[in-house]
Amino acid sequence: MIYLDHAAATPVSSKVFEAMKPYFSDEFFNPSSPYLPAKKVAAEYEAAKGVIAHAIGAKGSDIVITAGATEANNLAFTVLNTELIFCSGPRRSRPSPRGERANSAMGALRNAPSQNINSVLYLVTEHDSVRNVAKQYGGQEIKVLANGLVDMADLKSKITDETMLISVSLANNEIGVIQPLAEIGALVREVRMDRLKRDIKTPIYLHSDASQALNLLDINVARLGVDFLTLNAAKVYGPKGVGALYVSHEVKLQPLTTGGGQERGLRSGTENVPGVIGFATAVEEAKKHLSSNRKKYSEYRKILLDELQGYELINKKHTLDNFVVLCYNGIDAERLIFLLEEQGVYVATGAACAASKGEKSHVLKAIGLSDTQIAGSLRITFGETNTPEQIHEAARIINAAVQLERERIGNDD
Amino acid sequence: MIYLDHAAATPVSSKVFEAMKPYFSDEFFNPSSPYLPAKKVAAEYEAAKGVIAHAIGAKGSDIVITAGATEANNLAFTVLNTELIFCSGPRRSRPSPRGERANSAMGALRNAPSQNINSVLYLVTEHDSVRNVAKQYGGQEIKVLANGLVDMADLKSKITDETMLISVSLANNEIGVIQPLAEIGALVREVRMDRLKRDIKTPIYLHSDASQALNLLDINVARLGVDFLTLNAAKVYGPKGVGALYVSHEVKLQPLTTGGGQERGLRSGTENVPGVIGFATAVEEAKKHLSSNRKKYSEYRKILLDELQGYELINKKHTLDNFVVLCYNGIDAERLIFLLEEQGVYVATGAACAASKGEKSHVLKAIGLSDTQIAGSLRITFGETNTPEQIHEAARIINAAVQLERERIGNDD
Repeated sequence: MIYLDHAAATPVSSKVFEAMKPYFSDEFFNPSSPYLPAKKVAAEYEAAKGVIAHAIGAKGSDIVITAGATEANNLAFTVLNTELIFCSGPRRSRPSPRGERANSAMGALRNAPSQNINSVLYLVTEHDSVRNVAKQYGGQEIKVLANGLVDMADLKSKITDETMLISVSLANNEIGVIQPLAEIGALVREVRMDRLKRDIKTPIYLHSDASQALNLLDINVARLGVDFLTLNAAKVYGPKGVGALYVSHEVKLQPLTTGGGQERGLRSGTENVPGVIGFATAVEEAKKHLSSNRKKYSEYRKILLDELQGYELINKKHTLDNFVVLCYNGIDAERLIFLLEEQGVYVATGAACAASKGEKSHVLKAIGLSDTQIAGSLRITFGETNTPEQIHEAARIINAAVQLERERIGNDD
Repeated sequence: MIYLDHAAATPVSSKVFEAMKPYFSDEFFNPSSPYLPAKKVAAEYEAAKGVIAHAIGAKGSDIVITAGATEANNLAFTVLNTELIFCSGPRRSRPSPRGERANSAMGALRNAPSQNINSVLYLVTEHDSVRNVAKQYGGQEIKVLANGLVDMADLKSKITDETMLISVSLANNEIGVIQPLAEIGALVREVRMDRLKRDIKTPIYLHSDASQALNLLDINVARLGVDFLTLNAAKVYGPKGVGALYVSHEVKLQPLTTGGGQERGLRSGTENVPGVIGFATAVEEAKKHLSSNRKKYSEYRKILLDELQGYELINKKHTLDNFVVLCYNGIDAERLIFLLEEQGVYVATGAACAASKGEKSHVLKAIGLSDTQIAGSLRITFGETNTPEQIHEAARIINAAVQLERERIGNDD
């Protein structure tokens, strides 16, 4: 098997598995229980959160553990509920402060997005978990350039005094393009200063989904200037069903679920101890091997680009080292995927969740590809399961499959 | 170690662990990916959902996987969002039907509870994850009798033509009392018939949190007459961070999080494959050993009640076989817990999440216990880690600790 779809899923690494293992059946206690073995588990859980947070230049108390990136993205958007004018009249709904349980009457306003308020800007190429929630808040799209980078002029032109949240992923999940977050962060700070001067009270926040980037970029929330950052264990050789949201100190969110008050009221439910221990181990490993992996993947990328034939490269620059997005004009990439699968090579056409619904990639469309180009596009993402030999072999198999398809459709140029 | 707090947490059983194991690092694929190994994982995931559903007399397509019971309880309450009159005027908000992604403008109404509408009734002894969300919807409490059972007369008197949701747990998490759900289900059907006759369109639903009961009662959703049922893997020797909500066919819910559209749009995010495989195995094991475990635990209960001294039994009847709730009048149970911990016996005072916040048990209060009685109450819950020898030993250790405390406070009666 040559697995080249690490953007869709990564296997749990053996180190992560070994770290999680004791917490399933031995250290299984409920972290909220009063006796010592449970308190030990609670302390280890908090320490693991500290490790995850430290990797992005934050403290454990700055992050909220979630069931994955989708929930983290959705949670970030609840900042709008604490800020938006609710329904009738100018009453500002400021329900429970962060850290309290939202069980007050005001808490009933949670998750109550106002419509028709242009308070959200999001990059057109965002993952569905950002796009769909942004649309629920009447969000406006920010354009991208043909290279996939944010169109800064478009972003600037769309920021108004009503803008409260800008959401731009650190690296795109379909084309791997790395956005200039620090530049956007600086712009947000400028807007803040300007509003302060003009005595405009509306706050403005920056959210970034860093799911794909955590093991490939050196991330620091202060340097990026983000107020919210989404992390995902399952993309970095940690377990599925675990994610986190970094939340800047000053910012108030509202829980998506209420209950026992865990995660300081922002995310109730018994803590997923093995999951978070595994996530922390994955993050530590990712940080340790960051530069060697980047180097390795950029070599893999070079091998593919050298040895593959008859393609058009989509993600030319500003890309995660492990992403190669190719277009075989005139070829049906979905057929190609099945041919490759028969040879044990696993690649993708786009985001797994979008592809499974038979939807055309909104990302490839946004960067200006034609329908034919989109239909002929492959996403190849390297990872720790790969060796240089596999990459040479994959190039050979892909070339042969493309040749076969070109012959079949009578187009062997 | 003699662990007697299985209501707070259960260890992952070795069968569950072995079942999960291959899905971490070998069968790690994203179930939405297009190639065969991923499709195989997707099929196994669906099959596991089928197993979980089958155990409660339902189909896999009837259940929504969540990150635990808290999320499932919160998700059930979103039925009110699809039914309640939204803010201004009589417009009924009926956003996306179940199975669609809520990315329409109407979807923006999700999670927008109306206030001041007496549409929710919930048992006063419910877990915080029901109580807190019910309070957000202006829910009214249903009383319990001194034995912990629902006060049916109180329930009947509180049902009005506005009542849309009744939430009563199948078995209480602090005292193990089993509620007459089928009787409540029959009442709900009567109300439905009566509304139909009188042409009242307001629907009425029954939700039950069965987290504590799944491995101790033979559960069938049709027989209980519930529209929603909450399940929790972590209480039945499955993994933490996995739960499920059974949702009756006819009922529309709204997602708490939106994104890639997994779980038919009700719960987006890459599926927690190992978690759900583990949950299914746990459910199968639970069903297989249901009657033998009940028998075993009722014997343990008898041992404790025979051998312990100077206690008052709180949960006399209608209780899960593995729950023994005792009151040592005049004793501080929190001190007792520490004395027992020193001898390797782990018990609880109440719900772990409530206890960790230093809150007095609302359950014990609801059944009429005085503050002194509440302060002297212990919750002992048996489980698969226990042997008869452990129970005898625990009785001896508890008796000695109680005696020590009575001597210390000069009250050795």
